[in-house]
Amino acid sequence: MPPLDEFGLIRAWTEGRQTKELLGAAGVTLGIGDDAAIVAGESSQEWLFAMDTMVEEVHFRKETMSESDVGFKALAANISDIAAMGGIPKLALVSVSVPPHWTATRMKQLFDGLYSCANRYGVAVIGGDTTSAPNQLVVSITVVGNVEAGKAIRRDGAKPGQIVFMTGPTGLSAGGLHGLLKSAAEASHTTFKLPPIPSRLVQAHQRPSPSVKAGRMLLENGWGASLNDVSDGVASEAWEIAEASQVKLVLHEKLLPISGELASYAHDNGIQPLEWVLYGGEDYVLLGTADKQHEQAMKEHFRAEGIPLFIIGEVEAGIPEVAMETVGGINKPIPKRGYNHFSKG
Amino acid sequence: MPPLDEFGLIRAWTEGRQTKELLGAAGVTLGIGDDAAIVAGESSQEWLFAMDTMVEEVHFRKETMSESDVGFKALAANISDIAAMGGIPKLALVSVSVPPHWTATRMKQLFDGLYSCANRYGVAVIGGDTTSAPNQLVVSITVVGNVEAGKAIRRDGAKPGQIVFMTGPTGLSAGGLHGLLKSAAEASHTTFKLPPIPSRLVQAHQRPSPSVKAGRMLLENGWGASLNDVSDGVASEAWEIAEASQVKLVLHEKLLPISGELASYAHDNGIQPLEWVLYGGEDYVLLGTADKQHEQAMKEHFRAEGIPLFIIGEVEAGIPEVAMETVGGINKPIPKRGYNHFSKG
Repeated sequence: MPPLDEFGLIRAWTEGRQTKELLGAAGVTLGIGDDAAIVAGESSQEWLFAMDTMVEEVHFRKETMSESDVGFKALAANISDIAAMGGIPKLALVSVSVPPHWTATRMKQLFDGLYSCANRYGVAVIGGDTTSAPNQLVVSITVVGNVEAGKAIRRDGAKPGQIVFMTGPTGLSAGGLHGLLKSAAEASHTTFKLPPIPSRLVQAHQRPSPSVKAGRMLLENGWGASLNDVSDGVASEAWEIAEASQVKLVLHEKLLPISGELASYAHDNGIQPLEWVLYGGEDYVLLGTADKQHEQAMKEHFRAEGIPLFIIGEVEAGIPEVAMETVGGINKPIPKRGYNHFSKG
Repeated sequence: MPPLDEFGLIRAWTEGRQTKELLGAAGVTLGIGDDAAIVAGESSQEWLFAMDTMVEEVHFRKETMSESDVGFKALAANISDIAAMGGIPKLALVSVSVPPHWTATRMKQLFDGLYSCANRYGVAVIGGDTTSAPNQLVVSITVVGNVEAGKAIRRDGAKPGQIVFMTGPTGLSAGGLHGLLKSAAEASHTTFKLPPIPSRLVQAHQRPSPSVKAGRMLLENGWGASLNDVSDGVASEAWEIAEASQVKLVLHEKLLPISGELASYAHDNGIQPLEWVLYGGEDYVLLGTADKQHEQAMKEHFRAEGIPLFIIGEVEAGIPEVAMETVGGINKPIPKRGYNHFSKG
């Protein structure tokens, strides 16, 4: 399937297929379309459900991730969806479809990484499935979390006048992937020692940290009005909020955080870092909107907790879109395009 | 990965990886190892979680299943795991990894089948993931159900003196698959019209019915002491109960139900039907044990509901194993082997 319009396809496959009565009887508060679904639990809590799949040769290769990285990141990406609702991750189910070249030893290493992530975030792995596969490894994970009833931070809560914030710099994962692919390509036809890829970029790609703590702070203090995790890139996530909330998001080029390591690595490789900052995916920081009145308190609390917080723009009324005010003062639209692992590799 | 010892591998990958404290904090009552995990919900209810994956060329081929069959069966197999705990299926998350030859039209048909199953069983599809895949379609589904707290029918409840029962005949799905593969192979080098494959066998393979109603009857009346769904074959499921419960299951050849269509199709093809009855998988009837005192009431209620019920053996004390008393009065061990879709095709 060409990676054309995933959301359009999902809509075509799923929209209007089930009655409101059926969904209500199952306790569904929010179904397909956000980072996680919301289901009524005990009266004071709701359940969150998210599912995310990683496929060999699509999301990772031997050259870009170790076995244990694959396990860690597959779960981290799922936990990130719970973080993006302000929830607490609790449970995971893991399905692996295993081709012949993934030996029992390699699979053990994959689960080492997966459990390292699970235990770090207090997630109980409670089930799953194991099948064989003809060619590529597929890891599919469902994560279940919970959240105070009615408090989950959805992507449809952005309102004109709000600030747009981000809980960390982006583009690092894409920079790390670029370096890993370049090293692999060059290693095969050179005996010179390559300059090392900054380890922070490699770490960002291979062992991302889902922003559970940041999500909880945004929820517990009532600050987060809308929220996404940056899995498909800043542009794509901002577009999702703009469309779900029916507003315009204006980002300011000069406010977008670019880490020193990223700027320097991009410069050395003749690449414009903004490309990675806006369109690189898998950084798993949170991007959201909040009422302007909370700005000061948010900054203080995030600083006190040692979590980065960047105010990068504001919400305006208007046809749903995302625009950027450049350093030169020009207002230009940001296309909706997302992240594609190996297309630019 | 060779289909050697799936359970051994899963144990090697997962056992002892998480503390009791972590699992308790997440509300986990029963983790990996049964048809579904059990998680504490509201005080009167617990949640059940199960996950099941279907891979093209491993579980189905173009010749054996239509697109819509794939969607229907992928969900049905998951619902069956909830039925095998006596639970009520409620929610599903669906992840599809889509290779180029699965066009948007074919995927739409897959979801037609999936929603047909979801709506028949009152299951709300609340999320999932869509990725591309290089070669084969992979469909991974998580189903969430619920059950009265403490009442789920696990596989470790079999006790000596109990009867072994089954809620329908088995082997039909394997017979149907045999016919479909044979037709496909012969169609390419013959112009003769082939005798039709009995539609009940084809239906059993392509559109299986999970035994939700039977599972609920067994739970609500307190009859089911141990329970599995027959996804990997009678032998394999009986072995799971024997090992989990530390008992011996003795099945009687003369009591094993063999449908007329299956017997006749097997005879025409020179095949011993018992092979399919014991080792064919994916029939999705329930196999379990119950106290002998319930036998009469079970028979009456199942008859009244129009659901088959066969008493096929009894539970004995002893080293965990499964044996069969043949029609000739010989007691022979039944090997633990399970079901492999295309190995005998």
